[in-house]
Amino acid sequence: MRAIEINDGLILTDLPAPELKEGEVLVKVHATGVNRGDLLQAAGHYPPPPGASEIMGLECAGEIADPGDTGRAKGEQVACLLAGGGYAEYVAVPEGQLMSIPQGLSTTEAAAIVEVACTVHSNMQLAGLKAGDTLLIHGGAGGIGTFAIQYAKALGVTVAVTAGSQEKLQLCEELGADILINYKEEDFAEVMKNKCDVILDIMGAKYLEQNIKALAMDGHLVIIGMQGGVKGELNIGRLLTKRGSISATALRARDLADKARIVADTEKTVWPMIADGRVKHQLSTTVPLDQAAEAHRLLKEGEVTGKIVLTVA
Amino acid sequence: MRAIEINDGLILTDLPAPELKEGEVLVKVHATGVNRGDLLQAAGHYPPPPGASEIMGLECAGEIADPGDTGRAKGEQVACLLAGGGYAEYVAVPEGQLMSIPQGLSTTEAAAIVEVACTVHSNMQLAGLKAGDTLLIHGGAGGIGTFAIQYAKALGVTVAVTAGSQEKLQLCEELGADILINYKEEDFAEVMKNKCDVILDIMGAKYLEQNIKALAMDGHLVIIGMQGGVKGELNIGRLLTKRGSISATALRARDLADKARIVADTEKTVWPMIADGRVKHQLSTTVPLDQAAEAHRLLKEGEVTGKIVLTVA
Ligand SMILES: NC(=O)c1ccc[n+]([C@@H]2O[C@H](COP(=O)([O-])OP(=O)(O)OC[C@H]3O[C@@H](n4cnc5c(N)ncnc54)[C@H](OP(=O)(O)O)[C@@H]3O)[C@@H](O)[C@H]2O)c1
Ligand SMILES: NC(=O)c1ccc[n+]([C@@H]2O[C@H](COP(=O)([O-])OP(=O)(O)OC[C@H]3O[C@@H](n4cnc5c(N)ncnc54)[C@H](OP(=O)(O)O)[C@@H]3O)[C@@H](O)[C@H]2O)c1
Repeated sequence: MRAIEINDGLILTDLPAPELKEGEVLVKVHATGVNRGDLLQAAGHYPPPPGASEIMGLECAGEIADPGDTGRAKGEQVACLLAGGGYAEYVAVPEGQLMSIPQGLSTTEAAAIVEVACTVHSNMQLAGLKAGDTLLIHGGAGGIGTFAIQYAKALGVTVAVTAGSQEKLQLCEELGADILINYKEEDFAEVMKNKCDVILDIMGAKYLEQNIKALAMDGHLVIIGMQGGVKGELNIGRLLTKRGSISATALRARDLADKARIVADTEKTVWPMIADGRVKHQLSTTVPLDQAAEAHRLLKEGEVTGKIVLTVA
Repeated sequence: MRAIEINDGLILTDLPAPELKEGEVLVKVHATGVNRGDLLQAAGHYPPPPGASEIMGLECAGEIADPGDTGRAKGEQVACLLAGGGYAEYVAVPEGQLMSIPQGLSTTEAAAIVEVACTVHSNMQLAGLKAGDTLLIHGGAGGIGTFAIQYAKALGVTVAVTAGSQEKLQLCEELGADILINYKEEDFAEVMKNKCDVILDIMGAKYLEQNIKALAMDGHLVIIGMQGGVKGELNIGRLLTKRGSISATALRARDLADKARIVADTEKTVWPMIADGRVKHQLSTTVPLDQAAEAHRLLKEGEVTGKIVLTVA
């Protein structure tokens, strides 16, 4: 099969199709979403968890080419959460990580929503986000951000976002964001001081102190990215005064049971929001698989908003 | 009424009895528990929350002297969670902070259990502690620790403790602790590396790095004391790899509704554990109210285990 290999750049190559383990199906990939984790993996910083494919790609959509021992129908269209392997013609997927294609979406569009939906939904559940809360989303115009804004608005939450340009903030506003903060011009911790019931953070160390300032009483900071570094000073006294919580999570290394639970729960909660139009996919750019390097360049340069998807078949 | 005033030391003095606000009862104090928060308050570091009594004392037991507008019976024996005011003959208590006297306990013994029960139960609920988990308790022989060991064992949890002497560790073992760590001789982070589903911490900054090391996957560090300092370096990368959570909480500043919820929930969960003997009060020392300064000295020197109670009436 054709697949992208990391080999002094991203090279289209020929590899044997994956062999199925118990409980897995073989999916013929139509499209696969591009994630920041892929950039890290390409740079050698984010090795796949033990047992997972060495190929990049954390989400895809396509059709079942071989149902293995699962009893699924050959030809069934599916969207898939992956531990890896999406940048290829075929990928082996544990049955628990299969979802239906959300109503009204093409497989290409579906490949743009699996990872953000599972990440945002599972983390907002962990933080107990609920109607009436105020949520601060860092990087509101990115893949995670554009989904999170719509998801939170569907739950009845007040949404604040940060982004680095007026253009990106305008997109956030169109998606429903209530409070727009250009982090290059304003200190978000001042604007949101003591106001945030939940913060969805992708900056890590760089924003730790400011995020704690921005937390409301009983607030919860959830860190899913460390674009601003790994080690930061924590003022425990300030956290205690607010009865605050900090969680840091990742989806990829979870075990099969945990992923199956998250996938099922996300489908149950988020797919209806897509079906009735409250949440729209934010696929902004498609790139053919053989130009994966160009897709990575676009994501790295930060000029795209929403999601980039590689089209495969 | 007689009460202890902070005035260049702890002085027994005469003060007007408190006036009742709506929904409060006047309690004639039989006994009041001594807490580390009282030492901080005496030193000027832990001012009472707005509206609370200036007098020390975070828990007491006694009888209702004036039911105010609550419809309670005069003479009813009650245990009380307080925002302050226990070091006195009379204290005004919001009805939501009244508990029954646990079956089999005297009022003096009951005054030793309210604060630790509410603190430990509410925090272990926040952390989702459940049967089969491993819990690390720092300061296992203290007031919080001696209660937490028994509470966790009653839930079916494996309990590890730290303490500074073999004598204190022996008490922890008698109370049910499974893993005993003398923190002066061993590094608890090595002994418990990646093993702790929940950690109940009282040291704050000093133990932050080691606590993260000791967390298991999806583990939760709950910080309720900062005996080892306020500011520490947080390795977010390590926390994220474990999908870990950190919460820091305090009981005293919670609003009335929150306290009422915790008090009711604690009574429902913990009082039956006391009634059937799974949890025993750990009152080790009683001191008359007029010798409050001596009680503070005993707690500060760290020679007592379990709880100290001031007897009032
Ligand atoms: N833990 C997990 O399970 C998990 C899962 C998925 C994603 N992630 C992580 O989540 C993060 C976001 O992923 P993504 O797919 O949304 O990436 P993305 O589409 O590249 O978005 C990242 C956004 O960050 C913004 N940004 C950069 N510097 C910023 C700053 N100082 N303050 C605020 N925003 C800033 C960028 O926009 P501007 O131009 O406005 O700066 C960009 O829109 C990544 O770090 C990714 O690794 C984690
Ligand atoms: N946030 C809240 O809502 C809340 C409520 C109640 C209490 N607290 C806090 O919780 C803490 C414990 O309260 P407490 O009533 O149990 O106090 P305590 O009875 O004085 O117990 C404190 C214990 O800490 C131990 N200790 C000292 N240094 C230690 C170290 N380096 N490692 C491990 N243990 C150490 C001491 O025993 P050794 O001799 O073995 O060192 C002592 O037994 C205090 O800081 C208190 O302020 C917080």
